[in-house]
Amino acid sequence: MAARILDGVAIAQQIRSELGARLDAFVRDARRPPGLGIVLVGSNPASEVYVRNKVRTGSESGLFVDLVRLPDTASLDELLAVVRRLNASDVHDGILVQSPLPAAMGKHAEHVVFETIDPAKDVDGFSPVSVGRLVQNRATLRGCTPAGVIEILDRSGIPIAGRQAVVIGRSDIVGKPMALMLLHRDATVTICHSKTTDLPRVASAADILVAAIGRPAFVTRDFVKPGATVIDVGINRLDDRESVERIYPPDSPRRAEFETKGSVLVGDVHPDVVDVAGAVTPVPRGVGPLTIAMLMHNVIVAAEQRIASRQQV
Amino acid sequence: MAARILDGVAIAQQIRSELGARLDAFVRDARRPPGLGIVLVGSNPASEVYVRNKVRTGSESGLFVDLVRLPDTASLDELLAVVRRLNASDVHDGILVQSPLPAAMGKHAEHVVFETIDPAKDVDGFSPVSVGRLVQNRATLRGCTPAGVIEILDRSGIPIAGRQAVVIGRSDIVGKPMALMLLHRDATVTICHSKTTDLPRVASAADILVAAIGRPAFVTRDFVKPGATVIDVGINRLDDRESVERIYPPDSPRRAEFETKGSVLVGDVHPDVVDVAGAVTPVPRGVGPLTIAMLMHNVIVAAEQRIASRQQV
Repeated sequence: MAARILDGVAIAQQIRSELGARLDAFVRDARRPPGLGIVLVGSNPASEVYVRNKVRTGSESGLFVDLVRLPDTASLDELLAVVRRLNASDVHDGILVQSPLPAAMGKHAEHVVFETIDPAKDVDGFSPVSVGRLVQNRATLRGCTPAGVIEILDRSGIPIAGRQAVVIGRSDIVGKPMALMLLHRDATVTICHSKTTDLPRVASAADILVAAIGRPAFVTRDFVKPGATVIDVGINRLDDRESVERIYPPDSPRRAEFETKGSVLVGDVHPDVVDVAGAVTPVPRGVGPLTIAMLMHNVIVAAEQRIASRQQV
Repeated sequence: MAARILDGVAIAQQIRSELGARLDAFVRDARRPPGLGIVLVGSNPASEVYVRNKVRTGSESGLFVDLVRLPDTASLDELLAVVRRLNASDVHDGILVQSPLPAAMGKHAEHVVFETIDPAKDVDGFSPVSVGRLVQNRATLRGCTPAGVIEILDRSGIPIAGRQAVVIGRSDIVGKPMALMLLHRDATVTICHSKTTDLPRVASAADILVAAIGRPAFVTRDFVKPGATVIDVGINRLDDRESVERIYPPDSPRRAEFETKGSVLVGDVHPDVVDVAGAVTPVPRGVGPLTIAMLMHNVIVAAEQRIASRQQV
């Protein structure tokens, strides 16, 4: 029996329509839309796509979206000056600096930026204050991708409390916050990574398996307990024929897609897993749409909190 | 074969003697000792004991220790005023506000205090900035108890990388930071808690088992894989005869101790576990001494960093 496919587009749509009422209330109160400042340095093609999606979805959702572009040659100081201006702005409720930053800014540039963003406007949830509050289970602005995964589980009626959850991947932006969020929902959580011994055995203890490693089709059937829920956070673009033919059988529509477009998007989960799992998120149209929906959510929460804290003063 | 007993007193002594040279260098440079401000509100008997130990160990180690006492009736605002004074002080490199705070301060008082302490002086590692940096594996001031557990493992030659670690307990001050520190040392980490299904089975997968739940003798033989390392973070005072007689056999010296003193200290790990485990930390004289040694370590690190950052400016 093939797994149930968890439709990220439909769930994201549901969240965005619920946010509509909150946004309207904010606009009535504040007499302006919630504002999101996006800073894009340089012109990394993947970043261009992500930023375009954020700008479009934000604008369609009724946010004021302000895209600030800096050239590839911008210095870290110039970037920080933009962040400080947005911190001080009255009409920017959320600030997002698109990763990755140009290598010339130095390897600590992202951390310096995350430490500079006002935590009250940190809609990506990447500042140390936001992350620390997340650990203490009192964050209001939480990382968009892991928060989106929780929404998928909740809105699909998949219980978390008391279940075994295994997160493969320990990145700062997905793996670690994901593990913490599942823990706070009373799952028993295991975090695995490249140094884990016998990964398939550890993973196959999971009732909920989250793959966030960035390796195409890495999670195969032997990683998955029959009936488990498998959440695929990976988005990998494959443009070599050999890999595509190894992963997809000859009759797969993905093969045809590859012939037409020259590339296909593949998650971290092998397509065969659908035969074993109880439920899976597809790629694309799985976790991805939730990331943007939760960004909209965070901007509205940040805007509401800024208004509320001003009314208290 | 009985488990090897990991001697926390000896390991703590080793750390403190290594810190001696760093402290001397700081004093030569700064022409003053590193300073630790301890704030104690009220007179909780357990807190009195903890604070007395910190004051004594700090002074013996050559720190300037400044104990600020506030009455039980002090308001949160009065406490925050003290914290802000210590934040601004040039001679206080570290600040520690002893928990618990009086209930009358409100249930969010500790979080407000942790958010107020200057992260550069947060020697307990409890501020959200410190915790967030810990998640991002770039904290210099890390929680003293979990950092002490890592020292015990390292200095006892117990490998962490590639091993299965299970942490029982998900507190903000031990369980969660402990899991993160083990993860950053390349263990595969599982966090368990009161909602975990079949806890003995999950725990007995561990090569390294950390018990931090505050339930006397809760971790029994069936939780422990033969040969595993068991770290006992619990310190529970037992003063009822029935519990003492249930846990300790008639010929145990703990029974005699109970008869003399009217109470005994018991960890979260049952004494029988010594027959199964490969290595265990005792209670007392296990993790406890490390907590204070790592506090001294953090004060000296904070002092060194403050001097270094001033020289950069």
